[in-house]
Amino acid sequence: MITAGIVGASGYSGEVLLELLSSHPEVERIEVASRSYSGKAVEDVLPRLAGRLPGTRFIEADPGRLAAMEVDVWFLALPHGVAAAYAMPLMEAGRLVIDLSADFRLRDPELYRRYYGADHPVPGMLSRVPYVLPEWDAQAAWKEASLIACPGCYPTSVLLPLLPLLKEGVIGGEGIVINSLSGVTGAGKKESLFYSYAERAESALAYGLGKHRHLAEIEEQAGIAAGGDVKVQFTPHLVPLMRGIATTMVIPSAASTDAVYRCWEAHYAGRPGIRLLPSGKSPETRPVTGRNRVDFSALADERTGNLLITSAIDNLMKGASGQAVQIMNLRLGFAEQAGLR
Amino acid sequence: MITAGIVGASGYSGEVLLELLSSHPEVERIEVASRSYSGKAVEDVLPRLAGRLPGTRFIEADPGRLAAMEVDVWFLALPHGVAAAYAMPLMEAGRLVIDLSADFRLRDPELYRRYYGADHPVPGMLSRVPYVLPEWDAQAAWKEASLIACPGCYPTSVLLPLLPLLKEGVIGGEGIVINSLSGVTGAGKKESLFYSYAERAESALAYGLGKHRHLAEIEEQAGIAAGGDVKVQFTPHLVPLMRGIATTMVIPSAASTDAVYRCWEAHYAGRPGIRLLPSGKSPETRPVTGRNRVDFSALADERTGNLLITSAIDNLMKGASGQAVQIMNLRLGFAEQAGLR
Amino acid sequence: MITAGIVGASGYSGEVLLELLSSHPEVERIEVASRSYSGKAVEDVLPRLAGRLPGTRFIEADPGRLAAMEVDVWFLALPHGVAAAYAMPLMEAGRLVIDLSADFRLRDPELYRRYYGADHPVPGMLSRVPYVLPEWDAQAAWKEASLIACPGCYPTSVLLPLLPLLKEGVIGGEGIVINSLSGVTGAGKKESLFYSYAERAESALAYGLGKHRHLAEIEEQAGIAAGGDVKVQFTPHLVPLMRGIATTMVIPSAASTDAVYRCWEAHYAGRPGIRLLPSGKSPETRPVTGRNRVDFSALADERTGNLLITSAIDNLMKGASGQAVQIMNLRLGFAEQAGLR
Amino acid sequence: MITAGIVGASGYSGEVLLELLSSHPEVERIEVASRSYSGKAVEDVLPRLAGRLPGTRFIEADPGRLAAMEVDVWFLALPHGVAAAYAMPLMEAGRLVIDLSADFRLRDPELYRRYYGADHPVPGMLSRVPYVLPEWDAQAAWKEASLIACPGCYPTSVLLPLLPLLKEGVIGGEGIVINSLSGVTGAGKKESLFYSYAERAESALAYGLGKHRHLAEIEEQAGIAAGGDVKVQFTPHLVPLMRGIATTMVIPSAASTDAVYRCWEAHYAGRPGIRLLPSGKSPETRPVTGRNRVDFSALADERTGNLLITSAIDNLMKGASGQAVQIMNLRLGFAEQAGLR
Repeated sequence: MITAGIVGASGYSGEVLLELLSSHPEVERIEVASRSYSGKAVEDVLPRLAGRLPGTRFIEADPGRLAAMEVDVWFLALPHGVAAAYAMPLMEAGRLVIDLSADFRLRDPELYRRYYGADHPVPGMLSRVPYVLPEWDAQAAWKEASLIACPGCYPTSVLLPLLPLLKEGVIGGEGIVINSLSGVTGAGKKESLFYSYAERAESALAYGLGKHRHLAEIEEQAGIAAGGDVKVQFTPHLVPLMRGIATTMVIPSAASTDAVYRCWEAHYAGRPGIRLLPSGKSPETRPVTGRNRVDFSALADERTGNLLITSAIDNLMKGASGQAVQIMNLRLGFAEQAGLR
Repeated sequence: MITAGIVGASGYSGEVLLELLSSHPEVERIEVASRSYSGKAVEDVLPRLAGRLPGTRFIEADPGRLAAMEVDVWFLALPHGVAAAYAMPLMEAGRLVIDLSADFRLRDPELYRRYYGADHPVPGMLSRVPYVLPEWDAQAAWKEASLIACPGCYPTSVLLPLLPLLKEGVIGGEGIVINSLSGVTGAGKKESLFYSYAERAESALAYGLGKHRHLAEIEEQAGIAAGGDVKVQFTPHLVPLMRGIATTMVIPSAASTDAVYRCWEAHYAGRPGIRLLPSGKSPETRPVTGRNRVDFSALADERTGNLLITSAIDNLMKGASGQAVQIMNLRLGFAEQAGLR
Repeated sequence: MITAGIVGASGYSGEVLLELLSSHPEVERIEVASRSYSGKAVEDVLPRLAGRLPGTRFIEADPGRLAAMEVDVWFLALPHGVAAAYAMPLMEAGRLVIDLSADFRLRDPELYRRYYGADHPVPGMLSRVPYVLPEWDAQAAWKEASLIACPGCYPTSVLLPLLPLLKEGVIGGEGIVINSLSGVTGAGKKESLFYSYAERAESALAYGLGKHRHLAEIEEQAGIAAGGDVKVQFTPHLVPLMRGIATTMVIPSAASTDAVYRCWEAHYAGRPGIRLLPSGKSPETRPVTGRNRVDFSALADERTGNLLITSAIDNLMKGASGQAVQIMNLRLGFAEQAGLR
Repeated sequence: MITAGIVGASGYSGEVLLELLSSHPEVERIEVASRSYSGKAVEDVLPRLAGRLPGTRFIEADPGRLAAMEVDVWFLALPHGVAAAYAMPLMEAGRLVIDLSADFRLRDPELYRRYYGADHPVPGMLSRVPYVLPEWDAQAAWKEASLIACPGCYPTSVLLPLLPLLKEGVIGGEGIVINSLSGVTGAGKKESLFYSYAERAESALAYGLGKHRHLAEIEEQAGIAAGGDVKVQFTPHLVPLMRGIATTMVIPSAASTDAVYRCWEAHYAGRPGIRLLPSGKSPETRPVTGRNRVDFSALADERTGNLLITSAIDNLMKGASGQAVQIMNLRLGFAEQAGLR
């Protein structure tokens, strides 16, 4: 039994993480730190969790103090640019740190600068922090790591189907077009007219054309798997969902539907976080809401010579907090699905 | 002042059409026929229209009887396969017929057979019925036609931005990838578990991969404009909107953003049904709800060599009934926007 | 043909008002003033209105300058407490002022202080500014007034059914229980976590128990109609709608259903803003969206001895901007429904 | 460890029940019977449950066969009128039966006939089957029962706050007005135009005025607690939620807010299924989604002499399947919250 801590527990992924950890069979105690709610009772800020953490209050999110606490694993559910300032001292204090932010997702400091508009505070760390999609698991060494980067929500929906195909050469890295639809919790908890109910209900739009930050992450990981440069056209869309991402990929490819499924089966057979749907059946977002899995399927369109892949995840579960718990489970030797059913 | 008639007035596009015609300055009288509601008061079936058509009842949708009535223009808001059986006798009786169904949208009977799974009842008509996107207006002769095919909702969102670019050779017809997001009224008014609130809320999915019927319409019209074969990868998605279509197109092209806007300006300047947004600003569906216009913009992504076009329409207005009224206006010499503001 | 002006045109009711006035047959020119958007093009701030007001920009909302402009009627779509500072100088400059805010809805300065938490700036005006529900029209003298108070959204849904029954003694003023459900535009356009999509979707709650400001307005007007004190228990609820109010009233009463309908018919027969539904059929909010009318019905529950009344309006139309235009129409001698169809 | 069975597992409450039982620590095996899906894989019909019940198929819902199976407890998630035909043979075969339908909720066969429009098939059973709100627990004897009736969703939201106050005489049974707002899953899984997304989104309405079946259940149980007749005016409303019930009660009463809370504390202190909110703070539905609890609060409105009570539940959890599992837990001696966190 361990003690887990969360920094940034008041956002949407923080809340889901807290909910998961509060009923995790291997977690005995939880510390929750918040930059905004220090001193308040968790139940008052997050009424969904009423009864789960009686008496627990948010503690101050001071990196030094947190580093001094007896906590086995810290989860950082913080905005990018903020997480690094916690990750370093916590790691140096010997804690395991699982970072849900974007701060350590990229390998290349130059790429970070281009997409995030600032120099990375500890650029030397980037190539050393493992980026972990647990089912892909290319870097076995991550199970020794003391700081782990969790993938972004869009990249999770894209990379799990894509990486084995790129690695095995079933598809090439040219001309890939990716369109994703996301619910509004993907943007975080914010005071904003644009994200108000009256503005988001009954509206859909594309955004971030050609420059969304998750694009860098997708291309870098895809390139590693392919063993060469991969360029994708990635267009995210905002739709009136609270939770969920649906992704549609179009890939110029002569691969047969069968070859695609064979490759997926070879890599993913028996993995609980992966659900293959029959060719021709596209996944919906709702069946994966609250689930730590990605559903996907493929169809080779002979008429156009394209391979079509569609996937669905819950952005707060497999796309964030569920995956983070899965990473903890594997890193600490617990059952992979512990606390995730 | 004319008398207008609607067959199929109880569906969603029929209702919007009735609403538009009921306050149209050139329409004096409206006849509404329904296969399901014959004899019922319009207001009881369509309470939104209360006070608009006092005393009006649905009449029986018998083609022969309708043909005998003194009606200047008949709108067919019927499922495909049904409309043709009304269009022919009404046209033969000397009426103007504006068909909102898919029955006369394609030119090629073989294409019809492939996508609609049946032989067309009057295949010889297909090449003779004009398919009219009013702002595109390639076939001037349509203003003499007695039967006119209105474009489908997805094709309207796709073709208005695309056709001038193909015609002028600003883009080529290779490798076009189109993703569209649609609200549920696009599927019509139906008793169905899949379309129930509890199933559609909080869910998004791709459907009709590689085989949606609007694909045939898009490719045929795009090919006519381009003067050669055009193949597109078209993937529609269903999202929790009542109304609206957002379309994202990725087109391999060296064209500059400027060249694209110049082409659009040349074709569409001053047309009230077209609104160009600045490059980099993607349209949302809600601002076009209830509007007979399409909003669109373009961005050349130099990093990938793709041109990105995003558009938004209201599937029931510019995508169906608004466009049908606009067609009537132009065909009968009324102001283009009469009854559409 | 007149010139109309709006102060506060960038909020939800301001936008609807602008949309209505922009196609109003008696309105030639519109001036739009905004405290936040001065200098910006209306179309950029309110893309729904693209093409309606080409070239129009928001002007500065300075009361003195506005008073000096040649405008026939000013609509104030402003928060309470702000409107009065515009109403007085505009009225003194000889303009007709139609106030959509709460500033002149109450008659009693003491009541204003209790519910709004501040002294009214011009308390002497309160009893002199007519409060106008056009179909009720108790004060014929309002057609001479230069400042008119438009009712609140909840009160409109409550008072139109209630007032004739109270006035004619069909019901008494004791023990009335009112529950209303409102969409989120009722709260205005605001940057707020509480009103964000992710917080409001899939949630419903009661609020303002025993103290909502519209309660004062309901009781004061009900008391005037009844000729004595009326006390109501009014509980508003927030539900995931953009627009719409559904109101349910429970009134201890021995009145028969017939007596209620007879009273309503006597007062409202032929009025386009009123739609009586048959007893036993409760109105829905959606059929009245975008409509300047209230739908209502009644049922005497013999088992309990209560009269049940249910009503529905669009909070932005009959509950705000549509009613304001209707008031202008009647005040200036235009057709009652001009610009409202 | 036990074997549990569900009849009617394909509806919304059946699905939630299956999800709960599939991760219940005391349930070893689950049998799922369906009248519509016999022979199909559970995962294909209910993709949310993918991975939970690998290989499990719906069995035929034949009462005789089910009675012969080795199942410790059967849950009936069936429409009223159908459940009784299963309950009797299963009970006679010595199984524990927990009925989520309305078939055994009323005590009085005459009341059943009036509200359900048919004679009860086994009227003699009605007074013998315990109706169990676990926190209220008036009938200790239910822990021996072999057939147990689970309360309806609306009644659960009403009775848990109300019963202690009636029993202790804190309030009387006169003039109680109850308004409830419900999400659409409350109506079950159905093919219906009225319940389609395009009809329910952006709409709210009252229904079942003066005659909803849950009224009978509320009055009968309230009368038992009060020791005399209780009449309530109950008006349910349908709002665009998938899940959730928000209830507002107005009760003529001189009781102080403190007296109400003291009574609740006395009855419910420490019960995990009850969460008291501070007076003046009304519960929302979303924080209770997926939770087996009811949140409620009270406010004495001195101005009107009414006591106001607001409550919120998840209609599929505390209002149906969660409560059914809680009942099983208590009946079989498991931890009250087993499988419910």
